[in-house]
Amino acid sequence: MLHDSSEGNRSFHYGFLSQQPLASATLGIETVKLGHSTEVPRNVNMESLQSGYLFPEISMRESEHIRKHPDARLIRLGIGDTTQPIPDIITSAMAEHAFALSTVKGYKGYGAEQGNMALRTAIADKFYKDMGIEGDEIFISDGAQSDISRLQMLLGSNVTVAVQDPSFPAYIDTSVIVGQAGKFLKETGKYRNIVYMNCRPENNFFPDLSTTSRTDIIFFCSPNNPTGHAATWQQLKKLVEFAKANGSIIVYDSAYAAYITDPSPRSIYEIPGAREVAIEISSFSKFAGFTGVRLGWTVVPEELRYSNGYPVIKDFNRIVCTCFNGASNIVQAGGLACLSPDGFQALRTVIDYYKENAKIIVDAFQSLGLKVNGGKNAPYVWVQFPGSSSWDVFAEILEKTHILTIPGSGFGPGGNEHIRVSAFGHREYISEACRRLKNFL
Amino acid sequence: MLHDSSEGNRSFHYGFLSQQPLASATLGIETVKLGHSTEVPRNVNMESLQSGYLFPEISMRESEHIRKHPDARLIRLGIGDTTQPIPDIITSAMAEHAFALSTVKGYKGYGAEQGNMALRTAIADKFYKDMGIEGDEIFISDGAQSDISRLQMLLGSNVTVAVQDPSFPAYIDTSVIVGQAGKFLKETGKYRNIVYMNCRPENNFFPDLSTTSRTDIIFFCSPNNPTGHAATWQQLKKLVEFAKANGSIIVYDSAYAAYITDPSPRSIYEIPGAREVAIEISSFSKFAGFTGVRLGWTVVPEELRYSNGYPVIKDFNRIVCTCFNGASNIVQAGGLACLSPDGFQALRTVIDYYKENAKIIVDAFQSLGLKVNGGKNAPYVWVQFPGSSSWDVFAEILEKTHILTIPGSGFGPGGNEHIRVSAFGHREYISEACRRLKNFL
Repeated sequence: MLHDSSEGNRSFHYGFLSQQPLASATLGIETVKLGHSTEVPRNVNMESLQSGYLFPEISMRESEHIRKHPDARLIRLGIGDTTQPIPDIITSAMAEHAFALSTVKGYKGYGAEQGNMALRTAIADKFYKDMGIEGDEIFISDGAQSDISRLQMLLGSNVTVAVQDPSFPAYIDTSVIVGQAGKFLKETGKYRNIVYMNCRPENNFFPDLSTTSRTDIIFFCSPNNPTGHAATWQQLKKLVEFAKANGSIIVYDSAYAAYITDPSPRSIYEIPGAREVAIEISSFSKFAGFTGVRLGWTVVPEELRYSNGYPVIKDFNRIVCTCFNGASNIVQAGGLACLSPDGFQALRTVIDYYKENAKIIVDAFQSLGLKVNGGKNAPYVWVQFPGSSSWDVFAEILEKTHILTIPGSGFGPGGNEHIRVSAFGHREYISEACRRLKNFL
Repeated sequence: MLHDSSEGNRSFHYGFLSQQPLASATLGIETVKLGHSTEVPRNVNMESLQSGYLFPEISMRESEHIRKHPDARLIRLGIGDTTQPIPDIITSAMAEHAFALSTVKGYKGYGAEQGNMALRTAIADKFYKDMGIEGDEIFISDGAQSDISRLQMLLGSNVTVAVQDPSFPAYIDTSVIVGQAGKFLKETGKYRNIVYMNCRPENNFFPDLSTTSRTDIIFFCSPNNPTGHAATWQQLKKLVEFAKANGSIIVYDSAYAAYITDPSPRSIYEIPGAREVAIEISSFSKFAGFTGVRLGWTVVPEELRYSNGYPVIKDFNRIVCTCFNGASNIVQAGGLACLSPDGFQALRTVIDYYKENAKIIVDAFQSLGLKVNGGKNAPYVWVQFPGSSSWDVFAEILEKTHILTIPGSGFGPGGNEHIRVSAFGHREYISEACRRLKNFL
């Protein structure tokens, strides 16, 4: 989308901002005279977090670019942020719920921490039909990002973790925060105790499991952020078998499942046996344009057990009740409207709009002779530039076309030689971006 | 309030539910045949959490009571849950924001994780005027409970912690979850590594600091849940001096500050020097009836430093960006309306209503010759029954009057010989409860 002031308070998508150290200008820390210090030790895990070389650097380059080209109409295809209005039927349900809170009859205080049962059941019916998932196994959240960190609190520091490389940064960052990750090794760009599962075009974005070390937890995102690849049924079957053989738990992120239009599984629970080895995290953000409204869910099947036989769902329930107090009742009313026949149909139109954007972007890069992945079952297009640093490509595109993308290496060393291009945006800006790409690259 | 079906999905206030193990009937765990177990170890900290003898017991007793007295009109003064409608001006602002999300111009995606700057600034102006707190130091949350756990993630397992005894259970429970608490000792009802600061009528609800061990973190809630005591300026001055001398950080919970009507401080930052030693957590829940709407905030002053001089605010910002994605934009619009002159005035009326309830409850117990604390600057009344077990008192009141209260020992061993009575409720039920108390006790 074009640069406009409504976006002024936020330079980056959440995954990115999380790698951005607090600007001293914002907080004025530099101006504070050093006085009293407490004797409270800084958490060593927080010290291990990489302060994020990449994203502050992008932010700086963006500002620099605007300074250098004050009249250029910057188009941002970096942020994975929804841009299209939410269908009326959904916002009306939220407004109605809000109004009702001003009436004696409609007022509600605390709801269940796990979420309204009507919504939990509706999610089970809509997304997990015939997969044996019940409403009781679904926990409503204020978004996937919050539940990733609650899951990490649940798991604690004594589990080992594997992630796809490249991957959405929150998995690794929360892993570092709870103390699972070990030391960051500058020479490899990796944390010592994390297993990185390389996912590249060469292996159809699926790791060679015969050479992958066993870990307790396997984070797996499909359709993937950033590559846009939706894992196939065969790939997920292998993953579930691998987890079962190793006694691992898969934490499956299906936040982009609504973008799948081919027969790829939309849930890990489409795979037989997954209920015994997988947790699924999902979200209304990209499915319903709820990025700012905040709603998500996590599925923990009853069959999932720790090594001592204790049900994981019991501990997760305890975490949700202790560390969370339920998603907003107004927002949950909106979630229920999303799953009504008319709401769901209206959302399909919005998703199709972004998918058409993705197709336009894919076509543009392909017409330049580039190898492109993603964009088919996901709102992200993953463009390959063999032999080039993703940083150089990012800079060249910005300089020549005034289009902001994200260098793939921001998602881990495995993302190098790629850029991620987001298909979220108004069509006119997407089209304009593609015109520029074709003319200037 | 009277027992009605709208409350059917929730038996207890969140602090209590958090101590309640998942009912097997709800999850059907008992019916699952034991099959595959993963080899993932259960988090030892989760194992250390007390499964909560008290609150399931209350729940059971409530059900039992209803079974035994099916025609009794149960009045619940246990749950600390708001019951009065939210003023129109506030719900209209939320509805308006929701409607705008269906327009091209009004649609917003991700907001800043830290919250909208307009709301942060409004909170600074309304609650921290002349205390040197700026909007930049205020982080908007989805409620105090969530931010307590995010603070614990920030602090990690290597800090020592003190809590008031009795206290709101989330401090200790999250402390256990991140590994600060050590072993639970059945003989004392306390965790080995937690320092319990006894707060009873005899010491005017303020611990003897000359005999209190140094800890890194001191959780302190004022007006207190459950005792209803608002710490005096002199008490808080001592607390700040104690923290400063010991190099401790105070985590100050001011969720009930709006109920203060005497000169007691409404914020820890009224005390000189507090900016260097204190974090403040607060909430719209009890101030604006947002228990189900979900909105709160946390203040981290720039001056607050770890022992190595690193600013705590930088790490907290990182936690908020990594483990959270901002409060709902619809709800934040409501928060802003709460702080408008008309919104604030309307909320005063609701708070005064609950305070009048509290006064009625205080009078009722006092007329029975009982010693009563709280209820003056807080929506909780703390009734003393010297020499009696709080359990016995709870049972007697339930049996004789069909009124549900909370035994003080649910908030820690220091709460024994007390019950907590909530002043949230419709006036007619509060009056009816007091009539019963006077007639039957």
